[in-house]
Amino acid sequence: MKIAVFPGSFDPFTKGHESIVRRALPLFDQIIIAIGINAEKKYMFPLEKRENWIRATFADLPNVRVENYTGLTVNYCRSVKANYILRGLRNTVDLEFEKGIAQLNKTLATEIETVFMMPTLELSAINSTIIRDIVRNGGDASAFVPSAIDLKN
Amino acid sequence: MKIAVFPGSFDPFTKGHESIVRRALPLFDQIIIAIGINAEKKYMFPLEKRENWIRATFADLPNVRVENYTGLTVNYCRSVKANYILRGLRNTVDLEFEKGIAQLNKTLATEIETVFMMPTLELSAINSTIIRDIVRNGGDASAFVPSAIDLKN
Amino acid sequence: MKIAVFPGSFDPFTKGHESIVRRALPLFDQIIIAIGINAEKKYMFPLEKRENWIRATFADLPNVRVENYTGLTVNYCRSVKANYILRGLRNTVDLEFEKGIAQLNKTLATEIETVFMMPTLELSAINSTIIRDIVRNGGDASAFVPSAIDLKN
Amino acid sequence: MKIAVFPGSFDPFTKGHESIVRRALPLFDQIIIAIGINAEKKYMFPLEKRENWIRATFADLPNVRVENYTGLTVNYCRSVKANYILRGLRNTVDLEFEKGIAQLNKTLATEIETVFMMPTLELSAINSTIIRDIVRNGGDASAFVPSAIDLKN
Amino acid sequence: MKIAVFPGSFDPFTKGHESIVRRALPLFDQIIIAIGINAEKKYMFPLEKRENWIRATFADLPNVRVENYTGLTVNYCRSVKANYILRGLRNTVDLEFEKGIAQLNKTLATEIETVFMMPTLELSAINSTIIRDIVRNGGDASAFVPSAIDLKN
Amino acid sequence: MKIAVFPGSFDPFTKGHESIVRRALPLFDQIIIAIGINAEKKYMFPLEKRENWIRATFADLPNVRVENYTGLTVNYCRSVKANYILRGLRNTVDLEFEKGIAQLNKTLATEIETVFMMPTLELSAINSTIIRDIVRNGGDASAFVPSAIDLKN
Repeated sequence: MKIAVFPGSFDPFTKGHESIVRRALPLFDQIIIAIGINAEKKYMFPLEKRENWIRATFADLPNVRVENYTGLTVNYCRSVKANYILRGLRNTVDLEFEKGIAQLNKTLATEIETVFMMPTLELSAINSTIIRDIVRNGGDASAFVPSAIDLKN
Repeated sequence: MKIAVFPGSFDPFTKGHESIVRRALPLFDQIIIAIGINAEKKYMFPLEKRENWIRATFADLPNVRVENYTGLTVNYCRSVKANYILRGLRNTVDLEFEKGIAQLNKTLATEIETVFMMPTLELSAINSTIIRDIVRNGGDASAFVPSAIDLKN
Repeated sequence: MKIAVFPGSFDPFTKGHESIVRRALPLFDQIIIAIGINAEKKYMFPLEKRENWIRATFADLPNVRVENYTGLTVNYCRSVKANYILRGLRNTVDLEFEKGIAQLNKTLATEIETVFMMPTLELSAINSTIIRDIVRNGGDASAFVPSAIDLKN
Repeated sequence: MKIAVFPGSFDPFTKGHESIVRRALPLFDQIIIAIGINAEKKYMFPLEKRENWIRATFADLPNVRVENYTGLTVNYCRSVKANYILRGLRNTVDLEFEKGIAQLNKTLATEIETVFMMPTLELSAINSTIIRDIVRNGGDASAFVPSAIDLKN
Repeated sequence: MKIAVFPGSFDPFTKGHESIVRRALPLFDQIIIAIGINAEKKYMFPLEKRENWIRATFADLPNVRVENYTGLTVNYCRSVKANYILRGLRNTVDLEFEKGIAQLNKTLATEIETVFMMPTLELSAINSTIIRDIVRNGGDASAFVPSAIDLKN
Repeated sequence: MKIAVFPGSFDPFTKGHESIVRRALPLFDQIIIAIGINAEKKYMFPLEKRENWIRATFADLPNVRVENYTGLTVNYCRSVKANYILRGLRNTVDLEFEKGIAQLNKTLATEIETVFMMPTLELSAINSTIIRDIVRNGGDASAFVPSAIDLKN
């Protein structure tokens, strides 16, 4: 059974995230969208909301699960018997960060492979930081999140 | 009338910023240097000081205005009838950040174009973060800010 | 009079190039699309064809001119009394190249400024190299060039 | 049936390539290593040699096939009913190149996804260009190619 | 006498840092590993611990000293009569940051040169941020720090 | 005895190259500027001219030697008993290239270290490619090469 973990803080989950999951899904038997909880980070949206939003987004897909975890990502992967980590890759700053993480994860857990996909063109400028910035400034970011997500609620 | 907004926190305004504004000015009828206020950010220099410093720098140029704003940059641009955003571009990390912002702004407001200029060689290592670091450590950063700015006052 | 030169080999001119010119045009009184001729380079499309394609693309815009030149770009700019060079900027590899050229041009001709614009999202993957590759392999690249350009003719 | 095409010129095939194929193989039912033939490029090693070397490298793996092709990669993928393109990603220069290709391929063939993997740490400095340079200069590059490949023969 | 300062926060010191110091040491008469103290930053490991760990790591090398400093790095260099700053360089994000710092330091103190070394392949994914992340999440990071460092003590 | 090789094609040698050599010289007992000869590359300036220009540039410095070599750079280093390779590093494209070479050289010859220096601000836009382009187009590139070099002769 091929299980992939798609880890992130998803604060909030974007159309870019959704697209990666839908496009990668045929490659795996199951994708677990795993919200990492970092006690030192502040989030704009509460965990429960973020989980519910993602669940609503994939309500039609039984092989997409939503969970949260603390601790190392590779340990979490092992606990759910996932052999793959799925990551989106937008630009060169992402690359340097992801490369370091992927290569270190490989050292910590040689049986786990990281697989990358790039956003489609029309989604490539969307990221959670910019969405939070729009929300904070009273703008309308609904065009950048899946339709099941109502950022104002 | 061609109005450009040059947005930033300008904490403090540098010789690099000054050079971009002076070199871009012939392209526009007016450049508004717009200090963005983000309630979640801490600044080293108070807003009033930053505004006065920039005003003193361009005292000779009636078509350079200094203002401050909250909220989305594109909304501010609309409120002052600006069709252009002017940005400096120093390096590849800047590029990835600016590209995301520019492409998203284009989605939020198709009538607004972002125009980029690069620093001249001798100014290309100057940025506000490094100046704050010099000031914090008791160094002399006067060579990196316009002559009208006295960082110690 | 504000004249900008938009230099390139345009082998062929793409929708990305067209978009930059149309979006930048309000900033200038005239944009000269200047096809640089480098005797050591081989081109896929003959100069005359490239010129005619660009002329057809901007037939509706009298303040867009199409010319060709040899020699240094800054010398050409001076010969046509242009104070601006307009360049598109797609990615970090572009940036490093363009930064070197722009800073050196500034040394060779201090009165000439280079102004950059980024492609809109949907055009940001298009470039002449990829189009030539599609053409060479018998693919259909018509979606990536202006409608006035018929690559097969 | 999940089929991936791993396209390249493989001049020569490296340990880095081998590692990507072996690590990606569990994700697919079949990986086709497809040597692209570009009439305008010169290769150091003849096509037949390159094909045989790759075949010898994967002699133990029946679900790895080696083929060659001309024309557009997406057209080749369709002809062999592959829905995935597999690519290695080493660094930021690679990224900008691969991103352009992947996003354009998505435009040409929406049903084909590109999946990226990064080299493991110890293989991340190996590439075919450097190997050809070592060979050309009379050096010993055998440490950088799969053991089934004898560059001197 | 050729003295180099190797500045950083070393929170904690890594095998990557150790490798740079050992490989650069033959170039200098003395390397001073200088822990910069920034009152606005929070550190995971107390200063005394960080100093002792580095001292233990280089107990065998009398020409490696460990110190701490506040204020500008170039001022510290002058105070210890160092004409060189030694820095590791891992990736393109590092480069943009280090280039700005190095070029500005050159402006502040023309007699001080910055010399860069790159990590060896097998150490190139290690950095202090990732180690802190592993520690914070209860993982075992001992493989990434010099053997004289016991992160749990 | 600390000997560094500064390898390149130096077609032509620039003020940027000169600056790196002069700034690095105090670190070494001898720097050998080594012109690599690649039979497959075409050069604008003949080897003899390039050698003479560099010799004239460092006529005042007995511990700078100029030589040429064929074959692998690490083999050449061994033949002249050099333990260091000196390289300039301008930008992120350089970095990716240099990193690959440096890490592979380390694999081929563990006793040889590569040391990098960055250009000073005012020289950071100069490179041989741009100088050749200026020369080819009849421009005056004398400001970018050491005063001992007369490109027209």
